[in-house]
Amino acid sequence: MTESKESTVRLLITCPDQPGIVAAVSGFLHRKNANIIHSDQHSTDPEGGRFFMRNEFFLPGLDLDGLTRLREEFAEVTNGFVMDWSLSPVWMPKKTVILCSRVDHALMELLWRWKRGDMRADVTMVISNHPDLRLSVEHFGVPFHHVPVGPTLRDKVHAEDTMMSLMEGQADLVVLARYMQVLTPDFVARFDRRIINIHHSFLPAFVGADPYRRAHQRGVKLIGATAHYVTEELDEGPIIEQDVIRVTHSHDIDDLKRLGADIERHVLARAVQWHLEDRVIVDGNKTIVFRR
Amino acid sequence: MTESKESTVRLLITCPDQPGIVAAVSGFLHRKNANIIHSDQHSTDPEGGRFFMRNEFFLPGLDLDGLTRLREEFAEVTNGFVMDWSLSPVWMPKKTVILCSRVDHALMELLWRWKRGDMRADVTMVISNHPDLRLSVEHFGVPFHHVPVGPTLRDKVHAEDTMMSLMEGQADLVVLARYMQVLTPDFVARFDRRIINIHHSFLPAFVGADPYRRAHQRGVKLIGATAHYVTEELDEGPIIEQDVIRVTHSHDIDDLKRLGADIERHVLARAVQWHLEDRVIVDGNKTIVFRR
Amino acid sequence: MTESKESTVRLLITCPDQPGIVAAVSGFLHRKNANIIHSDQHSTDPEGGRFFMRNEFFLPGLDLDGLTRLREEFAEVTNGFVMDWSLSPVWMPKKTVILCSRVDHALMELLWRWKRGDMRADVTMVISNHPDLRLSVEHFGVPFHHVPVGPTLRDKVHAEDTMMSLMEGQADLVVLARYMQVLTPDFVARFDRRIINIHHSFLPAFVGADPYRRAHQRGVKLIGATAHYVTEELDEGPIIEQDVIRVTHSHDIDDLKRLGADIERHVLARAVQWHLEDRVIVDGNKTIVFRR
Amino acid sequence: MTESKESTVRLLITCPDQPGIVAAVSGFLHRKNANIIHSDQHSTDPEGGRFFMRNEFFLPGLDLDGLTRLREEFAEVTNGFVMDWSLSPVWMPKKTVILCSRVDHALMELLWRWKRGDMRADVTMVISNHPDLRLSVEHFGVPFHHVPVGPTLRDKVHAEDTMMSLMEGQADLVVLARYMQVLTPDFVARFDRRIINIHHSFLPAFVGADPYRRAHQRGVKLIGATAHYVTEELDEGPIIEQDVIRVTHSHDIDDLKRLGADIERHVLARAVQWHLEDRVIVDGNKTIVFRR
Repeated sequence: MTESKESTVRLLITCPDQPGIVAAVSGFLHRKNANIIHSDQHSTDPEGGRFFMRNEFFLPGLDLDGLTRLREEFAEVTNGFVMDWSLSPVWMPKKTVILCSRVDHALMELLWRWKRGDMRADVTMVISNHPDLRLSVEHFGVPFHHVPVGPTLRDKVHAEDTMMSLMEGQADLVVLARYMQVLTPDFVARFDRRIINIHHSFLPAFVGADPYRRAHQRGVKLIGATAHYVTEELDEGPIIEQDVIRVTHSHDIDDLKRLGADIERHVLARAVQWHLEDRVIVDGNKTIVFRR
Repeated sequence: MTESKESTVRLLITCPDQPGIVAAVSGFLHRKNANIIHSDQHSTDPEGGRFFMRNEFFLPGLDLDGLTRLREEFAEVTNGFVMDWSLSPVWMPKKTVILCSRVDHALMELLWRWKRGDMRADVTMVISNHPDLRLSVEHFGVPFHHVPVGPTLRDKVHAEDTMMSLMEGQADLVVLARYMQVLTPDFVARFDRRIINIHHSFLPAFVGADPYRRAHQRGVKLIGATAHYVTEELDEGPIIEQDVIRVTHSHDIDDLKRLGADIERHVLARAVQWHLEDRVIVDGNKTIVFRR
Repeated sequence: MTESKESTVRLLITCPDQPGIVAAVSGFLHRKNANIIHSDQHSTDPEGGRFFMRNEFFLPGLDLDGLTRLREEFAEVTNGFVMDWSLSPVWMPKKTVILCSRVDHALMELLWRWKRGDMRADVTMVISNHPDLRLSVEHFGVPFHHVPVGPTLRDKVHAEDTMMSLMEGQADLVVLARYMQVLTPDFVARFDRRIINIHHSFLPAFVGADPYRRAHQRGVKLIGATAHYVTEELDEGPIIEQDVIRVTHSHDIDDLKRLGADIERHVLARAVQWHLEDRVIVDGNKTIVFRR
Repeated sequence: MTESKESTVRLLITCPDQPGIVAAVSGFLHRKNANIIHSDQHSTDPEGGRFFMRNEFFLPGLDLDGLTRLREEFAEVTNGFVMDWSLSPVWMPKKTVILCSRVDHALMELLWRWKRGDMRADVTMVISNHPDLRLSVEHFGVPFHHVPVGPTLRDKVHAEDTMMSLMEGQADLVVLARYMQVLTPDFVARFDRRIINIHHSFLPAFVGADPYRRAHQRGVKLIGATAHYVTEELDEGPIIEQDVIRVTHSHDIDDLKRLGADIERHVLARAVQWHLEDRVIVDGNKTIVFRR
């Protein structure tokens, strides 16, 4: 859909299911003269359960002040419901920080899509615990920060402190593009439901380290990748997207890594894209993804 | 979604896009105490264009009389709009007639899914221009009618007359499971937007006869199948579903036919399933498919 | 490839890699005036390692006596090598026994492909621990044996004794089409590398019971199935084939089971087909699959 | 397969099928103490027809002089056969020229894979009829030549003359990465079977211009891309690789272009990779692709 992105707003709602939600929301939007472009909803159970909605609407002439008023008025509509909601202006791309380490495929795929205009984000910076990818990043005109991480927990905490002060006000979304470092619970909590990681296996197969080696040992016929939100439990966060590719007996571990890299970068790019388009709602340890 | 299929109704809407449609519809459903289970909508253009909606709602205690009243009341709601709509009770599966010829793969897949309860249809009969598949069909407890079709147009018209009288009141949907006969425009018009055909190629590649032979000659690396509504223009009707499978230089024409048969039966089964679940709206020569 | 299946033979070879294997084998076939139709080989390591070969050749006028002589002469060729090999006549389909329980999708897919001539096997019987599928099986003209399995290990041993005496001389291949019973090590050893099972998950994800429920809980975005040879270690045997299908948040456990059944029956059918065509060589806990 | 790429050679053979080919070839390699790493063959018909072979072997200590002698000796082996063959040293990557226009996705994917070491080519230069992509190309350390093409046939001939003199001795392979210019028959003949183009549709669907617009009009549910060798007949050359991606009613033409670009770049990269690995043999208007 080609959209007038100016004046377009996305509404995400999570609440206990109950009659009248859709009527209340669409009645409100109608009174505001909004034109609904897309609307999707999902209930976990038709008789009680949880309700999720994504709504994209067009409100000619809406600016940031108008959006503030719209939020105040919508808050009144939600009074009768126990509702989590957000109203996100499409014309203000989310500030996005990418963390990476030494391998570049996932990072390059994101920067490349972003440069081509396919990924509507405001990429504010790239942070890495290694200096290797500086030139590649700066070639895209994106600031690169090298924040080394020492071997102790103290080192990690200090590195994260540095990262958090760099990211202050600059990170609506944090993407781990093969960052290869476990984050502290504090850091994770600071960006709750806003850190996306790519794991190089089809979770829950091969949780943990070195999945391609283990996939090769097990003789699987497909290898995969999983993009998920980061939670305290390693490799257990809500899955956003997964995909696989066929392999054969003739592929060794290096082949699996090379083929897997292609799947990783695409799965991560799709997950990031969907988050940026407000298509993902977290529900406990699962996600609702309103795909096209 | 496991649904209380009793009392569940599906609403399909097509109309010119204009503000207030969703508010009017959801306001009506709210006043009727309906609980919306799923709702999807699509607009071809945010500023003018066409609007499509599929809505599945649960209305405890609704029976056929209640449905009749609901339709009358909803008709009043639609007064201000130029709206095509339907309200279909989920608890009354659509009456379905399957036409076939000699090859059985598409027919068997449908009957098998139906017998397993995966395809909620009321399969009223199978009609074939050949007697070969009688036993296979009757084994499923489905009536089989052999209606031969002679070589002339007169013969075809007479055969279709016989078929139409057999089908009178028994065919909400007609499925061509490799029927191999071109239908007359009259027959097509009689079941407008309710005849689904499976074409054994990835349309518009290999329109017409003998697609696997031509695919082999061209050396394609994928072969496919296309399920579409039948219109007067052969192989030009609105596409509902397509899929492909990979082939190699080592596959000869018979291999392509055999591999293609697997794709054909699954593509047709999905298209029929979606039609039966009121997920498909025809828009000119295209379809809107509200997939899960 | 359309082949003159009479007089066509398949040669499978496993041995330590060493120079001269291919020359010895192809020299022998040339002296016998055999025409090689297909030949594939794989080495695990170019400098030492293991060597695998599949060779399909045509030898006009070869009959069973000729095959016996061919085996004797080939045995001499292999003298200088430590070689596992087999020569299988394509015109004698492998005797195949299918074990099933109550669910029918995998069984039906196999019988259907067999009846259509797509699966060249000699299906000698179906054995089930439940009587439910007798009529469905006998409709295909295949003998059905009901061998109930009691709750104790003694019961299981006695049931397997009954099964083994039914299968005596009738089982080149045993297919577990959702048989749902763990076999004893004795039974497994009796049909070493000749029992194929379908597991209803993408192994090694969701090893063990109830994989669809656990897949739903984990919120995966793809579900899969795995066909593997049965070994003593449950769900750990060499994988022959795997595949997946996309699911969304809107699918409940029953939906996953229904969608999964489609993947299960196709993955199993492909694995059985490849075994019947002598395309699979077991190498430790992995398989070499010479696909087309 | 991790290979000692030094001393590894690939042999491609095309000839009329006849007994003794494999024996002659493998006997020769055995006498030379070569160790066969992979070998694949294909016959179009078991009793007469054409024969194709790909053989990858390791010959310790082989250098360029040794390769020359090997070619002379192999030529004698082939005397009894009407045989097209080539012996390609793996340690000498093919010289590759990429032609492009203004859009960069296919070009960037190739350069990126090349830079990562995933595509073993010697990329000698990029030539474009527009200057736009100079910086992007030079960032990879690859020479960029801008050769504008005027509107007349004379202009085109002169531009191709310039290109051919730039490419003299530098082009074992020419890749059209969305070059958007029809080449003259002379140019095509000059690089017979060595020009790979990416067509932005699933050929033979949407032959010719503007395939995404026509795909949108037709309402297809999958869009695709086709990599093929360039011949005089536009869009009719031998197909090397094809792939598709699912689209829905909600995607407009720009979405199709964006999604299609992802398929285009991967299909082209795979086709180029296979050509570089000597996996593709042209047989009339088709290809034999020896995939892993």
